[in-house]
Amino acid sequence: MRSHYCGGINESHIDQEVTLCGWVHRRRDHGGVIFLDLRDRDGISQVVFDPDTPESFNLAEKVRSEFVIQVTGRVRRRPAGTENANMPTGQVELLGKQLSILNAAATPPFPLDEHVDVGEDVRLKYRFVDLRRPEMLNRLRFRSRVTSYIRNFLDSNGFMDVETPILTRATPEGARDYLVPSRTHEGSFFALPQSPQLFKQLLMVSGVDRYYQIAKCFRDEDLRADRQPEFTQIDIEASFIDEEALMTLNENMIRSLFKDVLEVDLPEFPRMPYAEAMQRYGSDKPDLRIPLELVDVGDLVAGVDFKVFAGPANDPKGRVAALRVPKGGELTRKQIDDYTKYVGIYGAKGLAYIKVNDTSKGVEGLQSPIIKFLGDDVAQAVIERSGAEDGDIVFFGADKTNVVNEALGALRIKVGHDLNMLTSEWAPLWVVDFPMFEETSDGSLTAIHHPFTAPSCSGDELEASPATALSRAYDMVLNGTELGGGSIRIHDEKMQESVFRTLGIEHEEARAKFGFLLDALKYGCPPHGGLAFGLDRLIMLMTGASSIRDVIAFPKTQSATCLMTQAPGEVDDKQLRELHIRRRKPLAKAGESKEDTQAGE
Amino acid sequence: MRSHYCGGINESHIDQEVTLCGWVHRRRDHGGVIFLDLRDRDGISQVVFDPDTPESFNLAEKVRSEFVIQVTGRVRRRPAGTENANMPTGQVELLGKQLSILNAAATPPFPLDEHVDVGEDVRLKYRFVDLRRPEMLNRLRFRSRVTSYIRNFLDSNGFMDVETPILTRATPEGARDYLVPSRTHEGSFFALPQSPQLFKQLLMVSGVDRYYQIAKCFRDEDLRADRQPEFTQIDIEASFIDEEALMTLNENMIRSLFKDVLEVDLPEFPRMPYAEAMQRYGSDKPDLRIPLELVDVGDLVAGVDFKVFAGPANDPKGRVAALRVPKGGELTRKQIDDYTKYVGIYGAKGLAYIKVNDTSKGVEGLQSPIIKFLGDDVAQAVIERSGAEDGDIVFFGADKTNVVNEALGALRIKVGHDLNMLTSEWAPLWVVDFPMFEETSDGSLTAIHHPFTAPSCSGDELEASPATALSRAYDMVLNGTELGGGSIRIHDEKMQESVFRTLGIEHEEARAKFGFLLDALKYGCPPHGGLAFGLDRLIMLMTGASSIRDVIAFPKTQSATCLMTQAPGEVDDKQLRELHIRRRKPLAKAGESKEDTQAGE
Repeated sequence: MRSHYCGGINESHIDQEVTLCGWVHRRRDHGGVIFLDLRDRDGISQVVFDPDTPESFNLAEKVRSEFVIQVTGRVRRRPAGTENANMPTGQVELLGKQLSILNAAATPPFPLDEHVDVGEDVRLKYRFVDLRRPEMLNRLRFRSRVTSYIRNFLDSNGFMDVETPILTRATPEGARDYLVPSRTHEGSFFALPQSPQLFKQLLMVSGVDRYYQIAKCFRDEDLRADRQPEFTQIDIEASFIDEEALMTLNENMIRSLFKDVLEVDLPEFPRMPYAEAMQRYGSDKPDLRIPLELVDVGDLVAGVDFKVFAGPANDPKGRVAALRVPKGGELTRKQIDDYTKYVGIYGAKGLAYIKVNDTSKGVEGLQSPIIKFLGDDVAQAVIERSGAEDGDIVFFGADKTNVVNEALGALRIKVGHDLNMLTSEWAPLWVVDFPMFEETSDGSLTAIHHPFTAPSCSGDELEASPATALSRAYDMVLNGTELGGGSIRIHDEKMQESVFRTLGIEHEEARAKFGFLLDALKYGCPPHGGLAFGLDRLIMLMTGASSIRDVIAFPKTQSATCLMTQAPGEVDDKQLRELHIRRRKPLAKAGESKEDTQAGE
Repeated sequence: MRSHYCGGINESHIDQEVTLCGWVHRRRDHGGVIFLDLRDRDGISQVVFDPDTPESFNLAEKVRSEFVIQVTGRVRRRPAGTENANMPTGQVELLGKQLSILNAAATPPFPLDEHVDVGEDVRLKYRFVDLRRPEMLNRLRFRSRVTSYIRNFLDSNGFMDVETPILTRATPEGARDYLVPSRTHEGSFFALPQSPQLFKQLLMVSGVDRYYQIAKCFRDEDLRADRQPEFTQIDIEASFIDEEALMTLNENMIRSLFKDVLEVDLPEFPRMPYAEAMQRYGSDKPDLRIPLELVDVGDLVAGVDFKVFAGPANDPKGRVAALRVPKGGELTRKQIDDYTKYVGIYGAKGLAYIKVNDTSKGVEGLQSPIIKFLGDDVAQAVIERSGAEDGDIVFFGADKTNVVNEALGALRIKVGHDLNMLTSEWAPLWVVDFPMFEETSDGSLTAIHHPFTAPSCSGDELEASPATALSRAYDMVLNGTELGGGSIRIHDEKMQESVFRTLGIEHEEARAKFGFLLDALKYGCPPHGGLAFGLDRLIMLMTGASSIRDVIAFPKTQSATCLMTQAPGEVDDKQLRELHIRRRKPLAKAGESKEDTQAGE
């Protein structure tokens, strides 16, 4: 029906007759002729109709925005002075000969001009219109290009694409499952997978050797801005391989992806132990674009009377740290108050600071309400340790270690952005040597990754001192976002039991939940490991989209609703009866359904 | 951890030192040395350990079937006479130097030898062992290769891979939906999609222009041998395109796929109207490998007294047809009785036949219990019409048209196979010009494809005579199996309403179910169409697997159970409470759960 895409017309087509199909992006009547901007997924071409061709001219007068039309005409150079340098097709235009209206269109619920800001609810309700906006369509196309690149990369590295079930058993991630009542097994339920974790490990037991899948995962959690009930994971697993080889392979994949689709040369990814990341950046996914670091000063303030500092300094679970901000001396009282509120979000009770005006004047050159509490010598020692120079400000965090890390870690990012300190556009790294476990509020242990992650020590050492045991897990971090994470898995049955014991998971519970995996470990499980990338988040970072919903064709709101299809929706009680379930509360409105919910009692 | 795959060792490696990892496929002690067949996904290599290397020799003695080991050794030519021509690695063996046991293995639940026949239930329970069998692993690898080929084909033809939601609204296919109770919207349910049909049409409205997805689809139906609750579809849609272009594109895709992965040159696909397929083969997916055809003889028998034939011959909804089987005269009484039983399955009340012994003798040369009812002239006319020659048999079907078609259509396939009549290995075709609607038992009309399929006539003509209206749908058939089907869709709002009216779907009902699609038709919907292939069935045909479960990594049984994970399973009542649902019958066993199901009443 067409000879070219609208975006593909340029000077090389001058004097050729072409046929285009698409949507009327804009219509202008000017000097007795009609200008139509015709849009398809590749771009926009200008079509001109003049009264010399009355039939199509009269039709052109009928068309409105978003009408679907087919145009045949001759390509010509635009009159001098009317070229548009911002459009690939801006040097030429189409002199329309034939026009046919393929479909009319009601006035769109909102204009498609990118610069118009539309409420997201309207955009989501009319998603099929919203997706027409070039920036949205381009994101979908970019996403398709990325998945295609990654599949080809993995194919050519000997990985097999294997589909794993969507209707399955509860998986070990521990978030809330989506359930699907079974019709054929009364009272039983399928769970939608939170990840293919167990299945990909079983595929290694089967000898698939190298597996990947771009897999849908499901978590019924209350949604944060960057979460969706269903999300997509680039899922990878391999056998007879160690973490070194896995990290190299995946680093190469991401670097060549960025090179290919963004023409960005990522640097080699540094490797940073978890402990160092927490120490220097207060985060296990540090944003290395920001040249600010936390410095411990607990030893310097342990002796002062100032309880706010001395308390945490002498508490084994406490931390006192300094964050030097070059040129931060210019911050106003108001700005400092705002930062104080900000760290409050993360549980910090305050935000102590010292402004460094003139180091040559010693303590006289320092300006701070806390100097009198610290004493001159300690204050100077702290400033020295922080490396502060004239014109800088030094912030302090003193509290439980996790509070200091979260508060100063977050402050570091915020100040870094506020003062435009970013040193590069992309800052990737690997975080390694994670602890196996972390303490929950009730003092019990929980797995930091998942209970199938291999420790880097023996089972006996693990059970002897679980709190200090490290895992063979690794996270890929980019610009302060976790792109992906994985680990070498446990392939030894005894080791798996040690971990379950340490986590206080009874043998019976383990059998009930993961019996088939424990069986699999018995029957010849190879050493294996893998990782998973969050595809939506990766696309979001690469496209610079501000919301994960902008890189998903048909996303859900934060209350897990699809505003377009109105999902979730009501269903007949007959359907529920077939599934052997009932609503806890009968539908108020339909009397018919009331009876039904009574029936069977 | 390894230098090569086991299957990759050959004479080119002689005298090289290599390291292999894998599973012990077989162990033999012979003449004081130990032979291990080491297996990985690429094949098997023979490793020899002799007492000169006591350390690894002693370890090798400990090794059992399915142990996971790593072996380093030197490749050497096998002693003359001990080569194995059936193995790619059969000319060489590895003289083992170092052996390390990476994991022990309990005795497998069943031997992995391909020739041993194992009950499918055991295979499914221990799927991770079953998948180790080379034939199973090869099917998974083949499937991965096919999906990769198809994705690249579509990518290079400008199609975009777009993901559509799994948690959505009921879709129009009309099979039973799998439901997912919503936690955040009390009393509401998501449905798992039976296909991405509506979403892909909306993507066309958005201007995606060319879409594909290898998509999971879900139908909660009672399962036949070739069905699964979740199955995979190669889903395709395009805009500004007609059926001719769509069929050509997809035919090219399938033909180049067969060429690339099977080295099979498929012939060009013939196009056959639905009516002709029913007439000649009694089926809308005829197996053209079988050179037998149905021939109408109703006009010849309309006048006879024999009600069994004259009745259907004079009934507008009846059919009398003959099926000539060359050389069928040799069929025994017993065989004919079996075929009579067989057509009974399809509702035929009997199976009349005439054996043609000697045409030169006229009616004397015919042998049949029905000749006396037909009369000599009619009998001979019928035989002439059927084209039967000496030694043939002619079967007859006389009943309602659909019974005759199903019975003789099935008989045609069965006889064709029984008598080894297949004329080729692959017989593809397109079936076109389907009717829009078919009559249901209650006389109402239902859409043969789905209610979004465009008719090849105007809306007025459609509503004037719906029974005879044809659609712009097309099915791709291979060897009597429907590989895929699709259509040009309705892009005009009024036409969509005509179809809904004809189907007796109230405006309100249509709004409630597909309101967002009807909206989309208003806002500038382009002409579009597409199709979908059943991937599982395609792989099944291409690999010659006998069950769809053999081409799916983790399939479910016919009662929709996963014997490995024991899905579906029990869940806590707490979970159900969060989802605002209850079981219709409280769990008998757990007292705790009894209370819970009382709670909230």
